[in-house]
Amino acid sequence: MDLTALRTANPEHWTKAAAIRALTLDAVAAANSGHSGMPIGMADVATVLFEKHMKFDVANPQWPDRDRFILSAGHGSMLIYSLLYLMGDAQVTLDQVKNFRQMGALTAGHPENFLIDAVETTTGPLGQGIANAVGFAMAEEMQRAHYGRKLVDHHTYVIAGDGCLMEGISQEAIGLAGRHSLGKLIVFWDNNNITIDGTVELSDRTNQVQRFKASGWQVIEIDGHDPKAIDEAIEAAKKSKKPSMIACKTHIALGHAAQDTSKGHGALTDADQMRDAKAAYGWTTGPFEVPADVKSQWEAIGQRGAAEREAWEARFAEASQQKQDRFNRAYALDAPKKLSATVKALKKQVSETQPKVATRKSSEMALEVINPIMPETVGGSADLTGSNNTKTGDLGIFDTDNRKGRYVYWGIREHGMASAMNGMALHGGMRPYGGTFFCFTDYARPAMRLAALMKIPTVFVMTHDSIGVGEDGPTHQPVEHLAICRATPNTYVFRPADTVETAEAWEIALTSKDTPSVMTLTRQNLPTVRTEHKLSNLTAKGGYVLAEAEGKRQVILIATGSEVSVAMDAKAKLEADGIGTRVVSMPCMELFAEQNEAYRRKVLPAGPVRVGIEAAMRAGGWDRLLMGERGQEKKAAFVGMDSFGASAPAGELFEKFGITADNTVAKVKELLG
Amino acid sequence: MDLTALRTANPEHWTKAAAIRALTLDAVAAANSGHSGMPIGMADVATVLFEKHMKFDVANPQWPDRDRFILSAGHGSMLIYSLLYLMGDAQVTLDQVKNFRQMGALTAGHPENFLIDAVETTTGPLGQGIANAVGFAMAEEMQRAHYGRKLVDHHTYVIAGDGCLMEGISQEAIGLAGRHSLGKLIVFWDNNNITIDGTVELSDRTNQVQRFKASGWQVIEIDGHDPKAIDEAIEAAKKSKKPSMIACKTHIALGHAAQDTSKGHGALTDADQMRDAKAAYGWTTGPFEVPADVKSQWEAIGQRGAAEREAWEARFAEASQQKQDRFNRAYALDAPKKLSATVKALKKQVSETQPKVATRKSSEMALEVINPIMPETVGGSADLTGSNNTKTGDLGIFDTDNRKGRYVYWGIREHGMASAMNGMALHGGMRPYGGTFFCFTDYARPAMRLAALMKIPTVFVMTHDSIGVGEDGPTHQPVEHLAICRATPNTYVFRPADTVETAEAWEIALTSKDTPSVMTLTRQNLPTVRTEHKLSNLTAKGGYVLAEAEGKRQVILIATGSEVSVAMDAKAKLEADGIGTRVVSMPCMELFAEQNEAYRRKVLPAGPVRVGIEAAMRAGGWDRLLMGERGQEKKAAFVGMDSFGASAPAGELFEKFGITADNTVAKVKELLG
Repeated sequence: MDLTALRTANPEHWTKAAAIRALTLDAVAAANSGHSGMPIGMADVATVLFEKHMKFDVANPQWPDRDRFILSAGHGSMLIYSLLYLMGDAQVTLDQVKNFRQMGALTAGHPENFLIDAVETTTGPLGQGIANAVGFAMAEEMQRAHYGRKLVDHHTYVIAGDGCLMEGISQEAIGLAGRHSLGKLIVFWDNNNITIDGTVELSDRTNQVQRFKASGWQVIEIDGHDPKAIDEAIEAAKKSKKPSMIACKTHIALGHAAQDTSKGHGALTDADQMRDAKAAYGWTTGPFEVPADVKSQWEAIGQRGAAEREAWEARFAEASQQKQDRFNRAYALDAPKKLSATVKALKKQVSETQPKVATRKSSEMALEVINPIMPETVGGSADLTGSNNTKTGDLGIFDTDNRKGRYVYWGIREHGMASAMNGMALHGGMRPYGGTFFCFTDYARPAMRLAALMKIPTVFVMTHDSIGVGEDGPTHQPVEHLAICRATPNTYVFRPADTVETAEAWEIALTSKDTPSVMTLTRQNLPTVRTEHKLSNLTAKGGYVLAEAEGKRQVILIATGSEVSVAMDAKAKLEADGIGTRVVSMPCMELFAEQNEAYRRKVLPAGPVRVGIEAAMRAGGWDRLLMGERGQEKKAAFVGMDSFGASAPAGELFEKFGITADNTVAKVKELLG
Repeated sequence: MDLTALRTANPEHWTKAAAIRALTLDAVAAANSGHSGMPIGMADVATVLFEKHMKFDVANPQWPDRDRFILSAGHGSMLIYSLLYLMGDAQVTLDQVKNFRQMGALTAGHPENFLIDAVETTTGPLGQGIANAVGFAMAEEMQRAHYGRKLVDHHTYVIAGDGCLMEGISQEAIGLAGRHSLGKLIVFWDNNNITIDGTVELSDRTNQVQRFKASGWQVIEIDGHDPKAIDEAIEAAKKSKKPSMIACKTHIALGHAAQDTSKGHGALTDADQMRDAKAAYGWTTGPFEVPADVKSQWEAIGQRGAAEREAWEARFAEASQQKQDRFNRAYALDAPKKLSATVKALKKQVSETQPKVATRKSSEMALEVINPIMPETVGGSADLTGSNNTKTGDLGIFDTDNRKGRYVYWGIREHGMASAMNGMALHGGMRPYGGTFFCFTDYARPAMRLAALMKIPTVFVMTHDSIGVGEDGPTHQPVEHLAICRATPNTYVFRPADTVETAEAWEIALTSKDTPSVMTLTRQNLPTVRTEHKLSNLTAKGGYVLAEAEGKRQVILIATGSEVSVAMDAKAKLEADGIGTRVVSMPCMELFAEQNEAYRRKVLPAGPVRVGIEAAMRAGGWDRLLMGERGQEKKAAFVGMDSFGASAPAGELFEKFGITADNTVAKVKELLG
């Protein structure tokens, strides 16, 4: 392709965009891996976006009212690193660009939010960025309504590729954005017609323009290499009350021998071809060298937002102290001072009244007292509001005519909900939680993993947490999902036994700053087991002695959630037979593992036989608890599941699968010989 | 709603449909749980479909050339049970209907393919049925091309609700069906405008008609209670070369007080309201009573397909013996006799030539010799063909002009691929396998779980199975995914160490009849560790002694996949220090657990210290292997991951995370004291 016409039509624009292209080629070649074609293809869009539109101050990349830029096509990470280096980001230095994808570099293969402040979200798993962006845009709407336009008024821009749009999650995102008329969400579709396997045509013929329009988007079709068209499209998008998709017809790896081919998607490292491509760009400096005038033009772009930031800071300083405090507290993820006392009051009350309720109801009871004092919480459910018990009286429904609403009807979109919740958390100033059935953790799983990787405290409310689901049967009965969540690094998996533990778990989840929480909650009613009020949050220890042996301690029963009361019943039977039995409640294995060894040994001393009880697969972290951290325990057993469940009333299922006090007693007696 | 007009317009049709409605009300009331509204709303469509169109013989519900009926909205299971009981299915007796959702009944809360022969697929997790159906329809196209229209020529019908269409997987399915012009796929959309939380409007405003058209579907909009319109729409759909979506405007819980409300979605058990609804239906018999004339009309419908089946059987008998054998063998999931010898020959060859290749390449080498002798295999990849090494020379590309093609470019749709592969396996006569990166197990997870639950041998080819991914970083590096797959019941998780084990794993996967397989394969090259040819399939034992200690056996190293060669290197170093070291390769923990205790003890005798080596979380089943099944081993350690990975060249990552021979030696020496 002869680029002369493009170069000569807009020489100043061209040179700035060429800097992105050249840096991309150099960094990928140095790393000998990565993706050259996408940053090269989208350099024009990115240049116009940052030069003319992005409200961004490179010196303050986390200024709250900045525009958000999300590279959903995260493999094109050199686009973001090039931009940040060129604009003078303090973290993304030239050395970082030269060390692209190397050990310890901030310039990881895919953009990681926890490495670079200016990276809004970790992308790479396709479709996540566009779904995150829905959460960003919702958060902006909510906060604009709450704090006023003077403090919150920004756009969310996304670059998405064909991969993002083929992933199912994109449909969930598109549907949500259309439903809620997220007019400040602007998605650029890098319409280059190339995937890894070949042309898009190999696997898809969807008319994306019609598809987006079908969900209520404005769609603008442009030549993605025409800076004027790009600028005008963004202008039109900013004026739209609907979310906008700008379909940018682009050439992947523009000007390179691999242009318009799937080879162009990957690492373009051939020296001769790089030389030819740079010649076509009119780029004459050596590797990683950006001419001083081009660099200073880019640095000016990076500073464009400084004045807007300063004006915002002045407006912020004029806001009431209460508003400032509220804003700062929410963005710092600090809990309100009242939270602790509120949780304690609920604990005291329920340890006295001892309600027999499902822990999903316990969760609602906790949220009913917490939501009013934490205006940063946003609740929701994937079309199971009445089952997940996630909606409390004061929240109001988020809608086009009620942007202050704090409850989202996510629809039947577990994945989109989880990913958009991540976006809300990443946006800042919000604590999202959302519910579905625990079994449908499966649908939300890619986003749940990313919450853990990104170190954000999204809360996943997962009710109907075992065969206690009953008649809906094995498709709806989680057995392996505790194992799945517990095997994931940096994830708190709570399985509270009653309302007291549920309230304690919520306190931990809503004070966490870096770790997502999975609240696994029962469908079925449970007795209150924490009948003695304790001020301290015992769940924060992960596991603790709920009931001490009366006689000589021969047995330790370790249980979670609905099985804690099974353990208590078994204890009563064993004690009646003179067998001293300790019951350990273990609502969060991860927090227990974080305790010091002395504490862990105190809770689980050597000697007594151990039986674990949980209506789930033993693979969910039990072996170590039962056999000791060094395998020192000789006698242990597990009462739980070793298969999928079945369809029948819940009580009958617990009998069928032997998750009962009687079976526990029998296992203990077998171990005691 | 006054149903008089509907009743009087088509009285014969009405009564047959009313039987479904009445049985649904009675069964849900008896169970006191379930979903009444959907079967009531879609009774007219189902009645017309079975009366006028479905090629179905109730006496032979698994006759290969039947039309397939898939209830994607699986919660409406009473629709399928009512139909089967009314038509005289041998399994779904009146007692079964009366025992809906009870212990041991075939009439589970959601339709389960492994309980009832006439249930094509297990549904309930929304969106799965419509994506399964894409696989059914592809399988039909492939087999029609292969065997000819005389033996294979049938439709796939789906009922999908708003929930199915909101789930992202539906977009993947719609895109695939449109791309491949699956004209024999006909989807009824139960357009009742109701979800659990309220009206669809609460969470979605997508124009489904435009959306399907955007992906190349024919869409027909009808009144879903007008039998003539239903019939005509199906006729038009059957003539279409495009897949068809029939948008059926329906009333959920038609004629019941809860009609057109979200309450109507659930269990309608109020006796007075049931009475009123039945009166509106003109239904006067007692609970579960179907008038003899109505029952016999339905039984005649159930027998409609008998003549077609007999004609098919006659045509089948006329086919060549070779074709019959091939057909019968594939439908019986019997491997060709040559498979064993073919695998042995490859094993012999590579144990001699000892190639140093990635196991993804080993997998390709195995498939290159297996695919030519197993015409029932269908390969594919979610846009990572060159990375997953799933395409072999002889397959041909499945396309509109090459229905014989056995390789599918699934596009960037891991979930849709997995679910459609399940559909192919369920259709019968096919063995599908498909690839993506192991980390994106997350996207495919709901369908992978269902493969295990449904007892079908889908093969998931998951390459790039550890931090060996290297520079792409933690978003692309699985660490918890072995734990996830291993925690799932009825799933073989293979992590082969070299080409020999990979070939053995493929032999097991392609002879399995009831269990899906996950093939986890490396990106990076590995040495051949099985350098001595053995005829027997050692991988079938799950774990085995790869190398015996030379001196006194003080250590057992247990490793999988890429870490087996790390173990071998560590052994060499330990033996050099006089420390006798056994190396156990453990390519499939599930198969090892299936061996008898004597074998397991022989491989892992008590006494020596044990060190497990796997570039993944210890939660993936290691505690029991390391500490003994009763925790009897006192000294054990694990060399693996305890966090997410990082972006850097793979070799450096193994050093950084300590997954090396040196670190293994150090851990052994620490244990030996």
